[in-house]
Amino acid sequence: MTDLDPIPRDSNAALDALARDARAAARRLAATDSATRDALLRAIADRLDAESDAILAANADDLAAGRAAGLTAAMLDRLALDPKRLAAIAAATREVAGLPDPVGRTEWLGRRPSGIEVGRMQVPLGVILMIYEARPNVTVDAAALCLKSGNAVILRGGSEAFRSNAALADAVGRALESLGLPRACAQLVPTTSRAAMEHLLTLDGLIDLVIPRGGEGLIRFVAERSRIPVIRHYKGVCHLYVDADADPDVAERLLVDGKTSRPAVCNALETLLVDRAVADALLARLCAALAARGVAIRGDADTRRLWPAAGEATEADYDIEHLDLAINVAIVDGLDGALGHIARHGSNHTEVIVTRDPAKAARFQREADASAVMWNASSRFNDGGELGLGAEIGISTTKLHAYGPMGLDALTTRKFVVRGEGQTRHPV
Amino acid sequence: MTDLDPIPRDSNAALDALARDARAAARRLAATDSATRDALLRAIADRLDAESDAILAANADDLAAGRAAGLTAAMLDRLALDPKRLAAIAAATREVAGLPDPVGRTEWLGRRPSGIEVGRMQVPLGVILMIYEARPNVTVDAAALCLKSGNAVILRGGSEAFRSNAALADAVGRALESLGLPRACAQLVPTTSRAAMEHLLTLDGLIDLVIPRGGEGLIRFVAERSRIPVIRHYKGVCHLYVDADADPDVAERLLVDGKTSRPAVCNALETLLVDRAVADALLARLCAALAARGVAIRGDADTRRLWPAAGEATEADYDIEHLDLAINVAIVDGLDGALGHIARHGSNHTEVIVTRDPAKAARFQREADASAVMWNASSRFNDGGELGLGAEIGISTTKLHAYGPMGLDALTTRKFVVRGEGQTRHPV
Repeated sequence: MTDLDPIPRDSNAALDALARDARAAARRLAATDSATRDALLRAIADRLDAESDAILAANADDLAAGRAAGLTAAMLDRLALDPKRLAAIAAATREVAGLPDPVGRTEWLGRRPSGIEVGRMQVPLGVILMIYEARPNVTVDAAALCLKSGNAVILRGGSEAFRSNAALADAVGRALESLGLPRACAQLVPTTSRAAMEHLLTLDGLIDLVIPRGGEGLIRFVAERSRIPVIRHYKGVCHLYVDADADPDVAERLLVDGKTSRPAVCNALETLLVDRAVADALLARLCAALAARGVAIRGDADTRRLWPAAGEATEADYDIEHLDLAINVAIVDGLDGALGHIARHGSNHTEVIVTRDPAKAARFQREADASAVMWNASSRFNDGGELGLGAEIGISTTKLHAYGPMGLDALTTRKFVVRGEGQTRHPV
Repeated sequence: MTDLDPIPRDSNAALDALARDARAAARRLAATDSATRDALLRAIADRLDAESDAILAANADDLAAGRAAGLTAAMLDRLALDPKRLAAIAAATREVAGLPDPVGRTEWLGRRPSGIEVGRMQVPLGVILMIYEARPNVTVDAAALCLKSGNAVILRGGSEAFRSNAALADAVGRALESLGLPRACAQLVPTTSRAAMEHLLTLDGLIDLVIPRGGEGLIRFVAERSRIPVIRHYKGVCHLYVDADADPDVAERLLVDGKTSRPAVCNALETLLVDRAVADALLARLCAALAARGVAIRGDADTRRLWPAAGEATEADYDIEHLDLAINVAIVDGLDGALGHIARHGSNHTEVIVTRDPAKAARFQREADASAVMWNASSRFNDGGELGLGAEIGISTTKLHAYGPMGLDALTTRKFVVRGEGQTRHPV
């Protein structure tokens, strides 16, 4: 998060009005049918195609300002749009339009002794506040998922991407108007000041959910200040546990994929745990596979005995999310040792066991406390698309409401609906 | 909430240790099977029977202190235990033992194109902090529901009931020991100071969920200070909408039950909305039924024209939860008017439509934003037992995680579990 602020700070009254408009728009959206919302998403994609010149020009302005402000190459890359990236955003929006609509499904639970019939109806959450950093694609991705699921969305992107986000939000707004829906269904906050964000986080009567996406600093800032429920995901300290009954080839393959296929993402591995019973036989092979791919290895005393090139890992090192070609290794005493290490250092994100023993796998999957627990599969599969959710708006490592990747279902809730014939609770 | 504090304030370090012990105990509980947890609940019930003399003596001390401190008769009644109430608490615990266990169920979602098999496993939340006021039965009810669903619980009751709660928690602790489980599975916080509660609310690394039960003041205090997700329920401003197509007998019956059968509870009615098209024909009859039962009536100008005895209701009055024999009345323009009034004044709790028209009922049930929406049934049915949840630990009017009464299911979450045969996300 930067403190750049390209436009003047807005007053709290204007932010209150924005949130009230969003709530009114949410009522309108909740009354639309699936076909209308799908047509809306296709209209958004069409607008992105039609307005690509204006969007790319706004992005060029953001990039020029970013270069002048000294943004790193990595940040500029996250910020940059080009015709291909913009077309991919439009294509993703059309894909979301084609996903099944979760809204309105009612599960009837049967008749109660009182005679009433009880059901649970899936409904939109209402108003969602999305807080994110430099990637402008989130503006459209989040709007598509929220609108598809019948929610109004308030978009608060990073200041670096403000011009890009405004152009993208304008395309969304025109699409809303073309379907006769209020622009307030998807509003970009007209300021990126922290004070404005802090004020929005107090509006728990108007906003139902906050989803911050970005670095741990941004997410902690939001979580500590919000009176609105927050879906959190601080970091991914993911472990691969190689059990005594592991297939060594599978262990090596999952280790290399988990650590090296994309080290900067949250479902990459940070720690390798090896069962003491097979450490003599396996550890050197696993470390060699990592070292051959340029991974820096740190480990406990037992690890360093078997792989002398390893640096020293302290207890605190095992809490680090490297986001880089680096890994911590520990030798553990079987499944109990692995589960104990994960309970101390895990981040509730993704844990992996490599074993041929179904009983050990079952215990690991039950007891490892993480949003996704893999048996003989890569940690990198903890992703909405890979797990079959179609698309994801974020990932939750808190256990409330959603745990793991969040698709359209996680943007809804279920209310009770009751059908009666005049039943009272007490005789009247 | 009172500021009475019968024991010295504890240090934050002691509270941290208590929460860490709870987290370790939660791991132990998560590894138990259903039969063990059900045996535990039956053991708790047996202990309550066996230790009733000590529990009632502790309660007598609380009552004596409460009388000396000038507690109201209503507060003393909430605080009081007697052999019959204690036997009812034990019976409720045995009933929870007999409910189906939600933990461990896995729904398999099929194989993905990558070859991995994806499932979702229902698991305990972990550690739950229960904050409540004067009713000592909550100590046991909450412990039973949390332990049954595999969660450790931290109990923070009101200072008025501290001795009673300590005696009840001791019975729970002995039952835990008798099953070889740590007492830290269910701990009473050894101080009722607000400072201690505030410190606990910052421990988001150790506690997964806070459930405050009590008055709006307590719940706002918790919600504004907690870094841990909070299940909220501020108040119940519940409406009964009498549509032009209502059966007048049903309308009168549901109105009388909703307003008068137990006015002090959250699912009681606070507002009657009558469709303008039938106001001339029905309003006087409905008001007469209320007046005959001692209900004070306030209304808008149209209401007062048809029922001159009514007092004046201002716009702000329609936000009031009376918790008493009083009601606000408004004449509205059909379904749109009713939904508009509810959107302005509703509290997301319970809404009722009386109509013979299924299309209007369907629209009302879809668009009225409340945890339970009743068609021709009393608002008083919004209750875990009545809706078939078996027992409830509270009710949520926020839409995250749970919306409405919360049973055992709402004390669990679902994690992804994946079975593979060595699949990687990228070729290795």
